[in-house]
Amino acid sequence: GSFPAPPVQDPMWGYFTAIAGQDGEVDADELQRCLTQTGISGSYNPFSLETCRIMIAMLDRDYTGKMGFNEFKELFTVLNGWKQNFVMVDRDGSGTVEGHELSQCITNMGYRITPQALNCIIKRYSRSGKIYFDDFVACCVKLRSLTDNFRKRDSMQQGVVNFQYDDFILCTMSV
Amino acid sequence: GSFPAPPVQDPMWGYFTAIAGQDGEVDADELQRCLTQTGISGSYNPFSLETCRIMIAMLDRDYTGKMGFNEFKELFTVLNGWKQNFVMVDRDGSGTVEGHELSQCITNMGYRITPQALNCIIKRYSRSGKIYFDDFVACCVKLRSLTDNFRKRDSMQQGVVNFQYDDFILCTMSV
Ligand SMILES: [Ca+2]
Ligand SMILES: [Ca+2]
Ligand SMILES: [Ca+2]
Repeated sequence: GSFPAPPVQDPMWGYFTAIAGQDGEVDADELQRCLTQTGISGSYNPFSLETCRIMIAMLDRDYTGKMGFNEFKELFTVLNGWKQNFVMVDRDGSGTVEGHELSQCITNMGYRITPQALNCIIKRYSRSGKIYFDDFVACCVKLRSLTDNFRKRDSMQQGVVNFQYDDFILCTMSV
Repeated sequence: GSFPAPPVQDPMWGYFTAIAGQDGEVDADELQRCLTQTGISGSYNPFSLETCRIMIAMLDRDYTGKMGFNEFKELFTVLNGWKQNFVMVDRDGSGTVEGHELSQCITNMGYRITPQALNCIIKRYSRSGKIYFDDFVACCVKLRSLTDNFRKRDSMQQGVVNFQYDDFILCTMSV
């Protein structure tokens, strides 16, 4: 007799369980540690706890404030896409991009946003006129969540949604 | 002859100009320093830079990312109100409140929000099940800004707004 072969597992599973700890889910503190260790922010500053919290909120469909395995994998896929966008625009590797470069990224990602709204986004996410990687990701998280929430309600895809106050608050306060 | 009497000035004016520096407006870094010095957070932790940025965004009608004197005064008034609310609920002075106490504060402030949305707000602003003063203020800033933006568009006061995608993004990404 022999021991059964271990099941064919997702290579990320062991990593996830180590990060998640006893409760089997990843909270914002655990995510921050994990993103710092994996070096996904590379030579850039580590992610702030605030950005980690909205990353979780973006994927947290059951409002537990924590991430399961599938969300965890989805986050890495999404994050890698954003990082590629940022690195492409941050040509000199300084870790920051200019306002017009953020606009370019947002447009490249397929969002259709008027110059006025782009200008307001740039102001919100800049520090001394520059956008750092952490803030870039925070901006991407919010834009994605808000757009998803909008689209879910825009069933006719007409670019217009009738929001009740309470639903508006639910959609916008969680990210 | 004698020197003319100094004009009757707002007592906060001198303080504001000292904080604002050469450009005559207060940015997020300046605001953080100022709020730490004035001790408005009292025995609580100082405000995070992120919360300072959304405080400015809340009042920044011309999207410069900075505050003029009138906005600066308005912020202090609003902040003092929120602090009173928080202190009333944080009876043991621990610097944190529970989720249901945050709900109570939000209701006391006059917001009409369903339990589902309140639950989602609590999850978003808690750390290990507790809400710190800095996060409480961030929550109040967003709730006020989003509600203001909603009301401005709800001209018939029916609790329903028809949002175009671009306007939705403008309203929600700035805070
Ligand atoms: Ca966990
Ligand atoms: Ca200044
Ligand atoms: Ca301004």
